[in-house]
Amino acid sequence: MKPAAGSSKAFNEENTMSPLQKHRSQDQPKLPAVLANLASLSPSPKAGKMQASEEVLRLFPKTSAQHPLQFVSSEKKEHQTLVVGVVFSGGQASGGHNVIAGLSEALKKLNPDSRLIGFLNGPDGIIRNKTMELTPELIASYRNQGGFDLIGSGRTKIETEEQFQAAEKSAREHNLDGLVIIGGDDSNTNAALLAEYFTERSCKTAVVGVPKTIDGDLKNAYIESSFGFDTACKTYSEIIGNILRDSLSAKKYTFFIKLMGRSASHVALECALQTHCNLTLIGEEIEAKRMTLADITDAIADLIAVRSAKGKDYGVILIPEGIVEFIPEVRALIQELNTLLAKGPLTEELKKQLTPESQRCFTSIPAIVQAQLLMERDPHGNVQVTKIETERLLVEMVQQELNRRAKAGTFTGKFSPVPLFCGYEGRSAFPSLFDAHYCYALGHVAALLVSSKATGYMSVVSQLKRPVSEWQIGGIPLVQMMHQEMRKGKMKPVIRKALVDLDGKPFSNFKELREAWMLADDYRYPGPIQLYGPEELTNTITLTLALEQ
Amino acid sequence: MKPAAGSSKAFNEENTMSPLQKHRSQDQPKLPAVLANLASLSPSPKAGKMQASEEVLRLFPKTSAQHPLQFVSSEKKEHQTLVVGVVFSGGQASGGHNVIAGLSEALKKLNPDSRLIGFLNGPDGIIRNKTMELTPELIASYRNQGGFDLIGSGRTKIETEEQFQAAEKSAREHNLDGLVIIGGDDSNTNAALLAEYFTERSCKTAVVGVPKTIDGDLKNAYIESSFGFDTACKTYSEIIGNILRDSLSAKKYTFFIKLMGRSASHVALECALQTHCNLTLIGEEIEAKRMTLADITDAIADLIAVRSAKGKDYGVILIPEGIVEFIPEVRALIQELNTLLAKGPLTEELKKQLTPESQRCFTSIPAIVQAQLLMERDPHGNVQVTKIETERLLVEMVQQELNRRAKAGTFTGKFSPVPLFCGYEGRSAFPSLFDAHYCYALGHVAALLVSSKATGYMSVVSQLKRPVSEWQIGGIPLVQMMHQEMRKGKMKPVIRKALVDLDGKPFSNFKELREAWMLADDYRYPGPIQLYGPEELTNTITLTLALEQ
Repeated sequence: MKPAAGSSKAFNEENTMSPLQKHRSQDQPKLPAVLANLASLSPSPKAGKMQASEEVLRLFPKTSAQHPLQFVSSEKKEHQTLVVGVVFSGGQASGGHNVIAGLSEALKKLNPDSRLIGFLNGPDGIIRNKTMELTPELIASYRNQGGFDLIGSGRTKIETEEQFQAAEKSAREHNLDGLVIIGGDDSNTNAALLAEYFTERSCKTAVVGVPKTIDGDLKNAYIESSFGFDTACKTYSEIIGNILRDSLSAKKYTFFIKLMGRSASHVALECALQTHCNLTLIGEEIEAKRMTLADITDAIADLIAVRSAKGKDYGVILIPEGIVEFIPEVRALIQELNTLLAKGPLTEELKKQLTPESQRCFTSIPAIVQAQLLMERDPHGNVQVTKIETERLLVEMVQQELNRRAKAGTFTGKFSPVPLFCGYEGRSAFPSLFDAHYCYALGHVAALLVSSKATGYMSVVSQLKRPVSEWQIGGIPLVQMMHQEMRKGKMKPVIRKALVDLDGKPFSNFKELREAWMLADDYRYPGPIQLYGPEELTNTITLTLALEQ
Repeated sequence: MKPAAGSSKAFNEENTMSPLQKHRSQDQPKLPAVLANLASLSPSPKAGKMQASEEVLRLFPKTSAQHPLQFVSSEKKEHQTLVVGVVFSGGQASGGHNVIAGLSEALKKLNPDSRLIGFLNGPDGIIRNKTMELTPELIASYRNQGGFDLIGSGRTKIETEEQFQAAEKSAREHNLDGLVIIGGDDSNTNAALLAEYFTERSCKTAVVGVPKTIDGDLKNAYIESSFGFDTACKTYSEIIGNILRDSLSAKKYTFFIKLMGRSASHVALECALQTHCNLTLIGEEIEAKRMTLADITDAIADLIAVRSAKGKDYGVILIPEGIVEFIPEVRALIQELNTLLAKGPLTEELKKQLTPESQRCFTSIPAIVQAQLLMERDPHGNVQVTKIETERLLVEMVQQELNRRAKAGTFTGKFSPVPLFCGYEGRSAFPSLFDAHYCYALGHVAALLVSSKATGYMSVVSQLKRPVSEWQIGGIPLVQMMHQEMRKGKMKPVIRKALVDLDGKPFSNFKELREAWMLADDYRYPGPIQLYGPEELTNTITLTLALEQ
């Protein structure tokens, strides 16, 4: 290493960017072969009937007759100058900056005079018309970097008539040919509504969605994986692997690791397959089996007892953050609380309106978690599961159960629990090569969709299990992915969240192997994401994707 | 990526080791040039007087007359067959397995019939004579891997006469020529005592220490860095960098990140230099300035207020876990508690024996942290700072202060704090290339010291800032690093812990730059440790080492 300079000023200048930041900003992401001659690609509708229900279709009279799009090679043609806006919506996911880089480069390839505008700090930037010009020079230093900090993100939802009008005003003011919304299921639902609204009002702006979320729940027959899931799972698996090794070395702690990922347990399942933890709770299975908090507590206490009997007073347990919503009694409690909290803060008087079951459930929960259950809902009306310390809830309940068993003489082991949370550090990490390439391609496809005036479409890249060069591209009508769901007490059209499929291959594999993992300490250590070096270390996909596709 | 096999069995077999585990186990660590011809190296005492005080020297009559050793090239000579024991003592640090790999390979190079025995689960394995044979075949799969799980570790201290006798019995039973203790300051103090005891009893076993600790506090005129510090700081800096990027992207959370590292603030200082966080508390500075909890709370609240005034309701604050021991009022409280707790659990009656200042301090602390202050001490009599949730203590106190200011109208911003802890995941990570090479060399030097019958020595590798090939080696008498300190109410000889030097270059650089970091969001993102690829990404040392040496 070069010796650090003596003076702080020189030291600081030399150290403003890390070596990895510098290197990655200069690496060119790979592109699928099909995107090599961008200007010669033409959209072509694919046959097939719209899959959404009549009910949903009726809500989108202007955009529901659309067909999935593919792109076919034709002669190179002239492309008009485009002005495109882009926005990040919701939580960070690694690769977002590469969507912008891919979008920008594709627009310039189609027509060098095209421009890209960033809306600042999420959909709020569209409403308030807060923008910045995204030049290739500016974007360059964000290539292959984590985070959404180039333009920021936010969770404001475009919901009211005034907000829709404001969005239209912004679109018209910038004369936008396209608006690319990089977001999860809720944000893409919003994109579909905006597309319908713009079309109805003859606003030319084509709204295009890009599937983003670390949670892995934005996938379906058309979307193989959302971007960011790969990097987040690999980052968490690095940490979990380190902790497994630490647990096995010191042999004295039982780690309760809560994992970010919202409702679905995809992240936990992937991390389980990657690391072979002793126990991984899967929300969808808990719901299917209608397990109570007491059942879950018992299952964990049983594991600790049986390991302890083998001299193993240590281990690692994974807890998806969304699990509270899958425990029927807790879910019922949350729903009742949602209704009550709409009336104001939960007073003792209001608390009496809970059903007896929910009162009992609420009382059984440690005070700190009670408080967390009462916290503000997010703008989509969801409980902020990230803020509910389920790992501490379970530590406390398991501790109580083991104390009972110890008194009864049925548990003689040691229990030193350590609650931990893996979350924010996986959302803004340097994207893995998979996410870097994937996002770069998604950005290109978004440009093609805008150029094709395909409004209300999702940018899709598929065949992700194959080498990057063989990836396929297309556009899918957002409406096609929607169904009706209860939101804030009303039925609303939303993009269906994919939960863990209990008949799917990832879960089946996990189910067959997990018993062995309980006792055998058959731990696996993925280590930090490698961005250089041998292909088998750098060019990897999630086991979820490998098993599912 | 190779498609995952369909059946779970095949899937499991293919996935038992991660690609990185496989790759790293096959990589050969680099060796300093001076270690190329091991069998031709001879020990040679270096001039110089023993540095320890007369008082300390009197406690080591048999081993205090030793000189630092260097190794000089001579003719290749025959080396006798050696039997050597090795043990991990205390918390994990990355590279431990490479010390064993280096030790094993060096012993075999000196004489192929030499054997290496591992004592299991820490010094307790020496006392109980629990061992396993460490063959080269077995060690091979642990090469370049994290953790201490090959033989486990533990915190038992060899203290009583019975324990010393048991240790001698084990040493004699295995006919040990050497015992290599891989540990931190306390464990190496133990090594010195054991060396003295064995010598006095004419037990031939040479006791050799290896400087291990992620805390970075085992360094002095002879030791440039302990192993594990590099990997731990890089792992934490990866996470902190990700969180900084997340904070800057979402612009709504203030993260309070507690960092492992025991008393000293080396880890926090290194991470600050690596990531340019908005505020980093340094325990040694807090002590020097005699800051109270209220002062610290004010400093943090001021930062949040001034950032908020610039529209920045987000940021990242680093908190060394040892900080509670540096806040004079808290330290006084802990010392009083130590004395009281020696009498039994803290009753209300006992609590009255606290001084009024300590009673006041104790009362001002949130209940959850009060409970943590009363927890069991570790075997060395230290408060288990890792278990004190200082991050939550400060979140709560800052929240109260900001509430006060909001009421007074002097704070109008938003404050959404997120307490986090970076700890265990940095102790057992895959070693960075620095730690991998460093430990491999330390193991070689330990073998040379045993072969030279140098008991009571520390294995030392220096010039670490230079390329690996130019690293220098030697042995330093452990006694030379010792001084007298109060432990459990008695003066004891111990190896001096290195605290952050407030006049040293790392702190001076930090001090000059930190004001800019408070407001400028001049964040730096180190990213995950890279083990392959360009030299400037893989072959790096800590900024602490770069600045100090």
